[in-house]
Amino acid sequence: DGWGNVSRDLSEERTLSCHCTRCLISRQNPGDSIVVEDFRRKLKYFFMNPCEKYRARGRKPWKLMLQILKIAIITFQLVSFGLSNQMMVTFKDENLMVFKHLFLKEYQDQRVDRYAVYTKTDVYDHIYYIIRRFINLQNLTVGNHGYETMQGGYIPLILCQEFYRNSNISPGNDTFNIDPHVDKGITVYYFINIYLTLKAINLQTVRHHVFPDCYDFTITIEFDNRACSGRIKINLENDVGINECKDWNVAGTFMKNNQLLLIDSMVIIACFMSLILCIRSVCSGTQLQLHYTAFFHTYYGKTVSWSERWEFVNGWYILIIVSDTLTIAGSALKIGIQTKDLTNYDVCSILLGASTILVWVGVIRYLGFFQKYNILILTLRAAFPNVIRFSCCAGLIYLGYCFCGWIVLGPYHEKFRTLDKVTECLFSLIIGDDSYSTFKKMREKNYMVWLFSRLYLYSFISLFSYMLLSLFIAFITDTYETIKVSFALQLKVWLKNSHSQVFH
Amino acid sequence: DGWGNVSRDLSEERTLSCHCTRCLISRQNPGDSIVVEDFRRKLKYFFMNPCEKYRARGRKPWKLMLQILKIAIITFQLVSFGLSNQMMVTFKDENLMVFKHLFLKEYQDQRVDRYAVYTKTDVYDHIYYIIRRFINLQNLTVGNHGYETMQGGYIPLILCQEFYRNSNISPGNDTFNIDPHVDKGITVYYFINIYLTLKAINLQTVRHHVFPDCYDFTITIEFDNRACSGRIKINLENDVGINECKDWNVAGTFMKNNQLLLIDSMVIIACFMSLILCIRSVCSGTQLQLHYTAFFHTYYGKTVSWSERWEFVNGWYILIIVSDTLTIAGSALKIGIQTKDLTNYDVCSILLGASTILVWVGVIRYLGFFQKYNILILTLRAAFPNVIRFSCCAGLIYLGYCFCGWIVLGPYHEKFRTLDKVTECLFSLIIGDDSYSTFKKMREKNYMVWLFSRLYLYSFISLFSYMLLSLFIAFITDTYETIKVSFALQLKVWLKNSHSQVFH
Amino acid sequence: DGWGNVSRDLSEERTLSCHCTRCLISRQNPGDSIVVEDFRRKLKYFFMNPCEKYRARGRKPWKLMLQILKIAIITFQLVSFGLSNQMMVTFKDENLMVFKHLFLKEYQDQRVDRYAVYTKTDVYDHIYYIIRRFINLQNLTVGNHGYETMQGGYIPLILCQEFYRNSNISPGNDTFNIDPHVDKGITVYYFINIYLTLKAINLQTVRHHVFPDCYDFTITIEFDNRACSGRIKINLENDVGINECKDWNVAGTFMKNNQLLLIDSMVIIACFMSLILCIRSVCSGTQLQLHYTAFFHTYYGKTVSWSERWEFVNGWYILIIVSDTLTIAGSALKIGIQTKDLTNYDVCSILLGASTILVWVGVIRYLGFFQKYNILILTLRAAFPNVIRFSCCAGLIYLGYCFCGWIVLGPYHEKFRTLDKVTECLFSLIIGDDSYSTFKKMREKNYMVWLFSRLYLYSFISLFSYMLLSLFIAFITDTYETIKVSFALQLKVWLKNSHSQVFH
Amino acid sequence: DGWGNVSRDLSEERTLSCHCTRCLISRQNPGDSIVVEDFRRKLKYFFMNPCEKYRARGRKPWKLMLQILKIAIITFQLVSFGLSNQMMVTFKDENLMVFKHLFLKEYQDQRVDRYAVYTKTDVYDHIYYIIRRFINLQNLTVGNHGYETMQGGYIPLILCQEFYRNSNISPGNDTFNIDPHVDKGITVYYFINIYLTLKAINLQTVRHHVFPDCYDFTITIEFDNRACSGRIKINLENDVGINECKDWNVAGTFMKNNQLLLIDSMVIIACFMSLILCIRSVCSGTQLQLHYTAFFHTYYGKTVSWSERWEFVNGWYILIIVSDTLTIAGSALKIGIQTKDLTNYDVCSILLGASTILVWVGVIRYLGFFQKYNILILTLRAAFPNVIRFSCCAGLIYLGYCFCGWIVLGPYHEKFRTLDKVTECLFSLIIGDDSYSTFKKMREKNYMVWLFSRLYLYSFISLFSYMLLSLFIAFITDTYETIKVSFALQLKVWLKNSHSQVFH
Repeated sequence: DGWGNVSRDLSEERTLSCHCTRCLISRQNPGDSIVVEDFRRKLKYFFMNPCEKYRARGRKPWKLMLQILKIAIITFQLVSFGLSNQMMVTFKDENLMVFKHLFLKEYQDQRVDRYAVYTKTDVYDHIYYIIRRFINLQNLTVGNHGYETMQGGYIPLILCQEFYRNSNISPGNDTFNIDPHVDKGITVYYFINIYLTLKAINLQTVRHHVFPDCYDFTITIEFDNRACSGRIKINLENDVGINECKDWNVAGTFMKNNQLLLIDSMVIIACFMSLILCIRSVCSGTQLQLHYTAFFHTYYGKTVSWSERWEFVNGWYILIIVSDTLTIAGSALKIGIQTKDLTNYDVCSILLGASTILVWVGVIRYLGFFQKYNILILTLRAAFPNVIRFSCCAGLIYLGYCFCGWIVLGPYHEKFRTLDKVTECLFSLIIGDDSYSTFKKMREKNYMVWLFSRLYLYSFISLFSYMLLSLFIAFITDTYETIKVSFALQLKVWLKNSHSQVFH
Repeated sequence: DGWGNVSRDLSEERTLSCHCTRCLISRQNPGDSIVVEDFRRKLKYFFMNPCEKYRARGRKPWKLMLQILKIAIITFQLVSFGLSNQMMVTFKDENLMVFKHLFLKEYQDQRVDRYAVYTKTDVYDHIYYIIRRFINLQNLTVGNHGYETMQGGYIPLILCQEFYRNSNISPGNDTFNIDPHVDKGITVYYFINIYLTLKAINLQTVRHHVFPDCYDFTITIEFDNRACSGRIKINLENDVGINECKDWNVAGTFMKNNQLLLIDSMVIIACFMSLILCIRSVCSGTQLQLHYTAFFHTYYGKTVSWSERWEFVNGWYILIIVSDTLTIAGSALKIGIQTKDLTNYDVCSILLGASTILVWVGVIRYLGFFQKYNILILTLRAAFPNVIRFSCCAGLIYLGYCFCGWIVLGPYHEKFRTLDKVTECLFSLIIGDDSYSTFKKMREKNYMVWLFSRLYLYSFISLFSYMLLSLFIAFITDTYETIKVSFALQLKVWLKNSHSQVFH
Repeated sequence: DGWGNVSRDLSEERTLSCHCTRCLISRQNPGDSIVVEDFRRKLKYFFMNPCEKYRARGRKPWKLMLQILKIAIITFQLVSFGLSNQMMVTFKDENLMVFKHLFLKEYQDQRVDRYAVYTKTDVYDHIYYIIRRFINLQNLTVGNHGYETMQGGYIPLILCQEFYRNSNISPGNDTFNIDPHVDKGITVYYFINIYLTLKAINLQTVRHHVFPDCYDFTITIEFDNRACSGRIKINLENDVGINECKDWNVAGTFMKNNQLLLIDSMVIIACFMSLILCIRSVCSGTQLQLHYTAFFHTYYGKTVSWSERWEFVNGWYILIIVSDTLTIAGSALKIGIQTKDLTNYDVCSILLGASTILVWVGVIRYLGFFQKYNILILTLRAAFPNVIRFSCCAGLIYLGYCFCGWIVLGPYHEKFRTLDKVTECLFSLIIGDDSYSTFKKMREKNYMVWLFSRLYLYSFISLFSYMLLSLFIAFITDTYETIKVSFALQLKVWLKNSHSQVFH
Repeated sequence: DGWGNVSRDLSEERTLSCHCTRCLISRQNPGDSIVVEDFRRKLKYFFMNPCEKYRARGRKPWKLMLQILKIAIITFQLVSFGLSNQMMVTFKDENLMVFKHLFLKEYQDQRVDRYAVYTKTDVYDHIYYIIRRFINLQNLTVGNHGYETMQGGYIPLILCQEFYRNSNISPGNDTFNIDPHVDKGITVYYFINIYLTLKAINLQTVRHHVFPDCYDFTITIEFDNRACSGRIKINLENDVGINECKDWNVAGTFMKNNQLLLIDSMVIIACFMSLILCIRSVCSGTQLQLHYTAFFHTYYGKTVSWSERWEFVNGWYILIIVSDTLTIAGSALKIGIQTKDLTNYDVCSILLGASTILVWVGVIRYLGFFQKYNILILTLRAAFPNVIRFSCCAGLIYLGYCFCGWIVLGPYHEKFRTLDKVTECLFSLIIGDDSYSTFKKMREKNYMVWLFSRLYLYSFISLFSYMLLSLFIAFITDTYETIKVSFALQLKVWLKNSHSQVFH
């Protein structure tokens, strides 16, 4: 990492003089006192990478080894979690599909948003069909579904209606009388919900030597007339509770829960150790920085700038600290889930997922110890501020287009209905996706809006997909050239200094 | 903005001498009279940006603050307009869908352009079905639809036929006898239109604390036999009139129309102030330019070139003036719509939408006060003339391909049917979209045309997606390099001058 | 165009000395004889562009004006041809759709390639259905269809069978006995074709003040059992003959055929004139080249190289000659079609279409007279040989991938069935289209082939979409830089020479 | 190929001194002994390309001619193999489609993964339908299908059930009792398989003058209840055995198998010869390298580095050796398949396909003998290590994203279900495909995961499609510039040396 600031200097302003930290390390005056010489060695050692430290003082790269071990067990944990997740998700999804086919009349595996009824008789037909199917479930289903029991009896199907209090609407006379509070009761006006509860056992896991779990499905069938437009959308949703089965008897050997917990614990321990080590390094860096500031003030009478102080904090350690914290939190949650105490799968998977990205990004640091890889990393880092600045400008124009598209095209184009859809659609257009269909869907509308949409889309695509990409390439190409040149220059200086110095 | 022309010079012709405005400002001769010195200060002050003006004379950046305030309230206005629009559009769309399902026999949510009848019995069946459904509407619909009344009675369904006057066609004998004037009457030959009128109330808004409006739907069902090809397309369209309900009674508090009007008025006032300020600035710029021309003629005996004169007109002010004018017009229209006096939503949304893009683009100006952002803006501006020139050349070839594709492939390929479809299709191909499906749809045709289409598509895509993109990148990269170098040079000169000058 | 070879020199080999033509023109020695001086003027005049010629000798740019006129009338001709074509195509397409709905049992507007029958009863049902529908046509259709008559009676429906001569196949015993010659007759074995003939009149044109034409539809319904696999695909095709109606009587004014012919004739005349002028210019260029060669041999005793001789032939004239020839041929055909003597629409549209592209490309020449545009044109021209060379290398690898994909993936992937499909699919992948669906369609196959397909697709896309695009950009950027530099250099030399020379 | 290492030097480190091999060849000292001079000539000859060898000693380029011949016959073999493959695949595919339509109740050509049953009655209905259809096959089918016979009788339809041993499941009580071993027998619990065997003859080949083959179809219809979720997927699969028919009698002339075998044998012979020649060249190169090492040690007392030794091994020969080996193996397999001894089409096609790519890539070598083409090849080769290094870094981040996407989005997004789907989806996103649909499919889920998915997708696409592409372009552009400059330099040196040397 020691090369970083050198090239940064060069890329930002070649005429500025070299930073003092570097100068202090590399420049040796014959008249320097022993204290100065000592401090220089300390500084130099601090800015070395593990290989150099090993070569200089024989210090084994324990931290590096720990990181490699950590990656291995985290990957193992992730894969096992993912595979068990997958079985659970498949079972849930297939059951949802089964319930739709069992309870919804004339349901077909088409897009769900088209499943709706438009007449009164259809509404009643659909409700009676659900009730009949629920009563006959045991004779129909080919899966292992059972009714939920409570206090000896089965939990029945519940039909619940919501309606406006005291409503009296006569559109023919342009008059209405409404209380916007919603009550639950008898009149079919606003919403009908049907609740079912069913149970099932996920036997599929047996073949993977994992204990089967018992599932409680709470099914909600919603007849949604909220818009009062005459179209009642029917929607079936499925809430799942997963429990250990009460009584079971399985032949053969199974993976004990303990074994899974063992891996999670190992992950937590490894991450904790790595966390401690990194915090220690950051602390010692901060201390050295304080010494350095004091030393500099005493010997040279100058104050040290903030940007120079920040160099004592290694960004990679911060990355590892964040990643370890996320992993520990995620693994703790995972243990809770595996012992059926907690159920928030999503938080757990987001924590583990985010930490995985960081862990793998962290590996790049070790590639950076090889000089040729380092150029890449430095190029990306040096181009970063420019890219961010550029994205700000582009972002403003993008924002303008988003608002404009939403307001003007929203009523006429499915993809511009809501602000987040607009953002996604425009982003896809930039990278060259779905442009023809975006054009096409506007076709048969109001002429003025149609013309505006053409102007809007052509200008947007031309501007973003050509101008911006080109500028991006110009930045990166330019940065790469700068870094390459500065690197070659710096290499010579460094080599000369290294050779001329006699070091312990 | 003062840097603009410097870099423009350098990018266009580095050998040309510096513009006189700049020279006058930066070069100080000891022998200059007080008048010259005074005019120089005036000029220098004029070309400063708000920050510099504040630092130089302590002038508060009122205009900048007004712009920021304007953006905030315009965004608020836009979002509230968008959200209310969205509710209205949803209601209209859902009702259209409901009417299609209620009145069109065996209608399915497939693509509308496939809904057609081919035999005489089908035509009569469909018409009778519509009439039956209309009569029973109140027993069928689950929405709040009512018949429109007029003079005590309901407005009936109207069936209207259009046919050629005196037509007598016998294709078997290759003979026909026709009068191309179209009459309305009894013979089912050319067109049948069925008109319905229904009313509804959009109760959905109640939950968002907005008063419900009353909607008048004028439904037109068109049996289109215009092509006389034996295929009668059936199309249902829906004209909507939105009125305040006559008599209503709602419990709870609601957002008054006044509150919405308040925001619109604020927007109009803010834009008006900004408009006045910008016009004043432009005027003072023009006056200064006249002084400058006179001064220059008197002192140096030279005339000032047009390009130099134009520098006194700040392009950003023009942008703000255009944007403010659009916003004021849009907001005035919006007030008219909210008070139900006007109904042209589209014009209003286009005005507001276009102004939003300009407002956000205008923000880039303030980013340009930071030096690093300025490079981006200058690069884009400097590359602009070259990009336009290049687009002209590319546009000519593009035009040739459009005409050729329309003429040759039009009869054999859905996407090349009309000139505007061709344009969209070719544009999509350039950015890498839909190419496989474009190839595929040509497959099973006439061999010679098939071969031509291959040649056409391969050559077009290769030419445009590789050559043009590459040239674009070459321009931008080149411009960026030029700007960066010129900037670094200019910076030095400027800094040196600034330091050596003693100012106010 | 005079700049062309200068920059070409510089881009290819900067160290080579300037060409002799240029030198002769630009270098003036005081000792030159009058003959030399005279020849230099002649040469210089020859290499001028129209503007320069006008300025030098006041020659009006007749050729340029003729070209502009030509573009205007060609565009008018093309648009009118396109619009009339469009009406004809719509009528044909709608009739095809109508015939499919009338004659094919349970036909739906889905993809035609899925319409097939699998059992014997279905085959007979479909045939009887067609016959019944044909007999009742007049009572069913809502279009103006009539039977074709011949010698007083109607032309009947013809059912034609094709079968293998003497076939005797028993797959149960692995034995067969077949004569691969195909006979037409009674046994339903191989192919059944049903032929219908119907007539119709395209009345739609009446509204556009164009005379209606009479259409003869020859409908072929094919029951294709060629593969003997148990799946009989049913396909309906439609051959159209367009004739003038025999007897008609229309009220109102109509566009006469003569008016259309007038435009075509004007196009032919304009193109012929332009053709003559261009040929003359090419001839005079060739003559001047011969003089030049002789002159050079006499005065300097050197032979002139071929590349230098070619400079006397202006490439733009060749382009115009080709384009004019195509336009004349296309317009002549169009006259034949409009007078119903010829019917090959396709050849006509290809000729006119190809000429249109060339005409518009030719316009770029005039833009090249402006210096800044010229850089673009020169860049493209200079990059051309490199791009071609590069495409050769890329083409070889592409060819390898095509063959490999066809052989290995063909049996498992719809998109790799035939060699031309492979080409299209791979080409689409390069420009970033349809990659996910290409991956997905391979999913559920033989594991080894699946693995190979992944390797194949990842390597292909990475190689072509990154490496090649990058190299392309590298070439163009490099060429642009070279041209820009050489241009700036050359400009100086030229300006200096121009100023120091006193000319006519 | 001799230029390769020169430019490599320059691109890697310009300051390093020239390699010794090159120096030895090009530098001639007057004092060199005859031995040195002799060895220099030998070396120089070795590094020449075929054209130079021909010019130097008149050696005919036999190897080159053999390669060209080889490409011609390999292409012929490939095309004939592909065409015969295609006929076989069409017949198999159409039969599969026919069996699905014949045996699966209410089957439609929609996506197969939606074909499933959900109730007990449906399961029995589908099974009875299959049995009835199988019994009546001969009266139904329009293809030439027969029953398989064994020992005089027909092979019957076999219905086979698999179920868990001793299972007793009651989800209502959360209890189960299961033995995860699967038995085959009577209870319909786990899996039902139905096996059919049918025969057919592919008569289609008769028209292409190829003998018809007899096909044995083993059809498996699977009722898959493995997940025990209540959804039984029905899947029809088709195993094909291809045999020569026992007894046949065809009129007309046919292509004998011998003719096909002749081509395969020719391919094998050509490849074998080319293999021998290349191995010989590699061997002689190795020997020369040993001499060179010894010579160098003796005369200059230095050891030769490994990188220099590797230059004696020509990479192109290795490519040809690999390609020949693959072709020979593939052709041998193909002979086996054509004589019906072997059936592994896939291995054969993969071997031939892979060798084809290599053969065509090999042709680039010959283009490299032209100097301008060589620049391209050298650029690609020089950029290669950097590209690989860069891909490693990018690969790590990609891996992180893959794992994260699988864990977090897997349960909510179809495209992220399995790790290989994630890889394909992300790869497609990079090249700008399918991004909108990827965004859209996440829409209606859990809010937190929805937010995460947006963050994930926006960051991934921005990072990979902009940053990486730009860096790639920066590398290639840079490498191209370097190569071009080094080439120009080297060219001069080489030309000077060549001219000053007097050689044989």
